[in-house]
Amino acid sequence: MGYHVAVVGATGAVGQQILNTLEQRQFPVSKLTLLSSERSAGKKVMFKGQEVTIEAATPNKFEGVQIALFSAGGSVSKELAPEAAKRGAVVVDNTSFFRMDPNVPLVVPEVNEEDIRNHNGIIANPNCSTIQMVVALEPIRKSFGLKKVIVSTYQAVSGAGAAAIEELKSQSQSILNNEDFTPSILPVKGDDKHYQIAFNAIPQIDKFEENGFTFEELKMINETKKIMHDQQLQVAATCVRLPVVTGHSESVYIEVEDENVTVQDMKMLLEKAPGVVLQDDPNEQLYPMPANCVGSNDVYVGRIRKDLDNAKGFHLWIVSDNLLKGAAWNSVQIAESLVRLGVVK
Amino acid sequence: MGYHVAVVGATGAVGQQILNTLEQRQFPVSKLTLLSSERSAGKKVMFKGQEVTIEAATPNKFEGVQIALFSAGGSVSKELAPEAAKRGAVVVDNTSFFRMDPNVPLVVPEVNEEDIRNHNGIIANPNCSTIQMVVALEPIRKSFGLKKVIVSTYQAVSGAGAAAIEELKSQSQSILNNEDFTPSILPVKGDDKHYQIAFNAIPQIDKFEENGFTFEELKMINETKKIMHDQQLQVAATCVRLPVVTGHSESVYIEVEDENVTVQDMKMLLEKAPGVVLQDDPNEQLYPMPANCVGSNDVYVGRIRKDLDNAKGFHLWIVSDNLLKGAAWNSVQIAESLVRLGVVK
Repeated sequence: MGYHVAVVGATGAVGQQILNTLEQRQFPVSKLTLLSSERSAGKKVMFKGQEVTIEAATPNKFEGVQIALFSAGGSVSKELAPEAAKRGAVVVDNTSFFRMDPNVPLVVPEVNEEDIRNHNGIIANPNCSTIQMVVALEPIRKSFGLKKVIVSTYQAVSGAGAAAIEELKSQSQSILNNEDFTPSILPVKGDDKHYQIAFNAIPQIDKFEENGFTFEELKMINETKKIMHDQQLQVAATCVRLPVVTGHSESVYIEVEDENVTVQDMKMLLEKAPGVVLQDDPNEQLYPMPANCVGSNDVYVGRIRKDLDNAKGFHLWIVSDNLLKGAAWNSVQIAESLVRLGVVK
Repeated sequence: MGYHVAVVGATGAVGQQILNTLEQRQFPVSKLTLLSSERSAGKKVMFKGQEVTIEAATPNKFEGVQIALFSAGGSVSKELAPEAAKRGAVVVDNTSFFRMDPNVPLVVPEVNEEDIRNHNGIIANPNCSTIQMVVALEPIRKSFGLKKVIVSTYQAVSGAGAAAIEELKSQSQSILNNEDFTPSILPVKGDDKHYQIAFNAIPQIDKFEENGFTFEELKMINETKKIMHDQQLQVAATCVRLPVVTGHSESVYIEVEDENVTVQDMKMLLEKAPGVVLQDDPNEQLYPMPANCVGSNDVYVGRIRKDLDNAKGFHLWIVSDNLLKGAAWNSVQIAESLVRLGVVK
């Protein structure tokens, strides 16, 4: 009893976390197909105590696959996700390629689980920094109305892949040793210029767009509106890369519709919100931090304050493991929704 | 020709930078008195090629002093700044103790230099994170009007003193070596709990106040209004400590009065603004970063974007060396203003 599941990009940072999460959640896998680039084919990976050999990803490998979890970059998804869908699989794609396609649902189960019913073979997993924000803001939107969001992010290097983690570590060591180093990965692999990330902050994630925003910032803006089904929602973002290995943090200002909402209302709401852990007690110096969220599927919220000038304004600090809720766990969670809602039979 | 200058807290991180800055700026010093705690008394420090012996700070040491630059903590300023003033010195105090006192001008020379004329013996130097923000925002306020400021900070550990720098470095090394460590300084020395700063982000700077904001956040809010002489200005702040040694960054959202202002207007204005260096060219991946601002007296501004929903809204990224413009340079700059405006004769 179970499903034929394929994981595309099985050797990557997120792919590894997808396999761990499938195992931990005891997802009903009857057959597991692990796919990757030609280069990684032949490698073996452990799953539930058994060795599974990774195969090169080609269209035919999706024959019989029911759920395909893609996390191997936009160009792989562009080419192979439609092939998987054509063969009857439901694709959960972790890249940005299909996210804004009107025919592709963009899903965070705590927010818009029902949207998976509208899939046409592909469901997109949102950007890591978007996911954790909407998990925290959706209960607020439902209870108090939400008009405006201004977010400044504090993002970990693992969002840029394993090479970026290695770059942060080796650069940090070089600086501690007073040795020279040459940045080669961050802020954007393959871009013209690379900057020091160790003991620094880089206000660029992904490429710049015409309007001066980065693509990462536009992802947060556009994806939030799509997931919440609210094109009127005002969203602004500034995205910054930090010398943190794992765990994205966000300083978020919001304006709600109801001016009578108190901090206590907000805390009581978030305490019961799905996927959210409230960590907010200034007297105990309790607030979320990236170092404490690593390995957890939850979204942590703290530092909730009412704006001093605007009765409808609130400030929040939102932290989550960008590889789990921001990627692997949200993908597996969508797979669980597919099963629970009977979308995949 | 010159002035009898005293530096109180001469051995501290900021005190050292004050001495360097007095030297670099060729400030007219006829006599230099270096004061510190009993513990550091007797140490020798080089100034303009000569050895100066540090003395224990007592009231009588201020006899004959014309300008006294204090940077030895709030309790020292509380006790000794009035003693120095009583003896005829003009005190420039770098602690928070007198900043909100209505009888004490709070000065950033690019913004409100004339306020030094109203001193009653003490002039306060604002908080580091406030200074760099108002230098960038004052020209905007003057030209386009300023209604609202929402800032999220990315602050370096050197703002918490030399011990915090040492803690960041030793912790970073421990983590790279997979060794245990025990945080003992950050976020607030002497507070109950201490947290990992290496490869982490701590959303607490200074102690919490009753309303859930930290004292650092309230400093930014209240000092900005006082310096700009605008109690109607709406200011909100979230202050976060990062694993950066020196250089504070700020993600700032503002609303101006004039909805016709363009990004180009904003850039042209800031390009000519005193104390500001515009670093803003997305095509060249040019934007300010803490690693590049260290050692400079300037305030760097980039990532200027018009808000996508509000014609009066703009986003900016502001970076400066927190030990220089944020502390030592602004103090020496006030001393220069005292001389230039003839306030000290």
